[in-house]
Amino acid sequence: MTRSPAEITRGQAVAVVGAGLVGSGWAIVFARGGLPVKVFDAQAGVATSALRLIEEQLGVMHSAGLIDDPGSVLRNITVAATLDEAVDGAAYVQESVFERTDIKRNAMEELDRVCGSQTIIGSSSSGIPASQFASGLAIAPRVLIVHPVNPPYLVPVVELVPSPETAPEAIEFARELMESLGQSVVHVRKEIEGFVLNRLQGVLLREAWALVEDGVATCEDVDKTLRDGLGWRWSFMGPFETIDLNAPGGIRDYALRLGPLYHSIARSRDQTRAWSPELMDEVERQRREFLPLERLGERRAWRDRVLMNMAANRKKERT
Amino acid sequence: MTRSPAEITRGQAVAVVGAGLVGSGWAIVFARGGLPVKVFDAQAGVATSALRLIEEQLGVMHSAGLIDDPGSVLRNITVAATLDEAVDGAAYVQESVFERTDIKRNAMEELDRVCGSQTIIGSSSSGIPASQFASGLAIAPRVLIVHPVNPPYLVPVVELVPSPETAPEAIEFARELMESLGQSVVHVRKEIEGFVLNRLQGVLLREAWALVEDGVATCEDVDKTLRDGLGWRWSFMGPFETIDLNAPGGIRDYALRLGPLYHSIARSRDQTRAWSPELMDEVERQRREFLPLERLGERRAWRDRVLMNMAANRKKERT
Repeated sequence: MTRSPAEITRGQAVAVVGAGLVGSGWAIVFARGGLPVKVFDAQAGVATSALRLIEEQLGVMHSAGLIDDPGSVLRNITVAATLDEAVDGAAYVQESVFERTDIKRNAMEELDRVCGSQTIIGSSSSGIPASQFASGLAIAPRVLIVHPVNPPYLVPVVELVPSPETAPEAIEFARELMESLGQSVVHVRKEIEGFVLNRLQGVLLREAWALVEDGVATCEDVDKTLRDGLGWRWSFMGPFETIDLNAPGGIRDYALRLGPLYHSIARSRDQTRAWSPELMDEVERQRREFLPLERLGERRAWRDRVLMNMAANRKKERT
Repeated sequence: MTRSPAEITRGQAVAVVGAGLVGSGWAIVFARGGLPVKVFDAQAGVATSALRLIEEQLGVMHSAGLIDDPGSVLRNITVAATLDEAVDGAAYVQESVFERTDIKRNAMEELDRVCGSQTIIGSSSSGIPASQFASGLAIAPRVLIVHPVNPPYLVPVVELVPSPETAPEAIEFARELMESLGQSVVHVRKEIEGFVLNRLQGVLLREAWALVEDGVATCEDVDKTLRDGLGWRWSFMGPFETIDLNAPGGIRDYALRLGPLYHSIARSRDQTRAWSPELMDEVERQRREFLPLERLGERRAWRDRVLMNMAANRKKERT
């Protein structure tokens, strides 16, 4: 039997600490799931501005058919004037402050002072493991990474990454809460730089940049390869299922046939070089031909519309 | 002004040589574009069986709203009894024989004997460059790789990979023909093992398998990371556009911020090891938990339905 978000938090609120783009996205996820959300940002006025952006975003989601009643979602969100007020009585805190180890550490030390002894704390960190900023604190057994993709109210995946100090109960709580909110939970079982998502993104980007550096393909041709082909299956099956279905005898059969090719490709690359300033210039030049800098904002709005369409169609399309 | 496929071939037919899964898919692409297609397979009965599968597939596409008149598409396709008959008067040959260098070489030597002096020849090779099997033949300037993703009538990307001997006119002809048929052309400018598509797939798979080997994630968790998150943007923007939109100042700004992380991830991997038999056992075991071998076929049918939905929705979704 699946429990509702409110059953999991036993009617308690959740706190969002840090009200930038990531924190605001989280507020929508929790509020849409029916939970009272208290939003706090240490910088004056940020949380209040976030609330306006959230209201706007809820309107767009409503137009796209993704939510029925934007007003009732918005009413679940309140701004807290202090960190104490935000976490008071909260079952869960989503920490979404700026991603730098010292800033995360400061936030965790403050949360250590104000949180109740039962509060679970998820950090939105996209690559820094929790042991680098929560270690040794009283709250450490209740801290883990809960890393979203932006925006989390459209793209469901979240990576849960416990530190060696994280208690199994905290992982279980975060998993159940996230699943009850409609997120798709990936359990990263060991701390590793970049976690799973950014490691996979990173290796593909490294090869893509190298192909451009070697004059094998343009940025646009690499993008076409994914958006008109390779990316399709990955967007509904993932890479393992893709290859499992791509050989008569399943994945071992596939690995025996194509493993040597991929091994040879891997060995052909020198991975020791950083991206050079000249390569960055070239990639920047190619992209600006397709999209002038002043149109980035407009294109981001397009991206978000497409993601909204995908979120709306996904269930239908995958059955 | 865009020319129609028939204008590009000047009313001449195209020949599909090799009537397996790949060749049959190509026959649909050409016939749907209004071109007369002659299908040949050296093995008796294969081309005739292919025609029955094509008819079935056209019916499914019709039900999905992808084509209006399956009968008229089917009537464009005929079976040729001999290679001579297939290529006689053909403007273009799509070679789709089994992917092994010696078999490709044999096919090219035969095509060299029977093709007219104007015929352009595209090979469906997914990783072997043309210079390894067409070099030194009279047809070599008219041979290039035209590598599809399966099935090409649903997934539009094709890689064009000229050899050093390929004439610019042959590349231009293939590009124009493919674009007129609705395919999305990626121009791979230098011969390289795996071309662009399989190199990108290969590096991501290598990291994915390594994460499973190290116990960081399960196959299913890696798949979730793509299909519920990372794969979404790539399926409509590609990796370069994705990161260009993911930093306030565009792609150089992104590279300055995240390049060091990806560089560090790359250096953390030893790429010299092949996939071990034990790792293949483990991956096979994990996949079979999700999908027993006897249900692979059923799941492939599901995949093709989803791809058909994607092909049908794509244009709408991306605007």
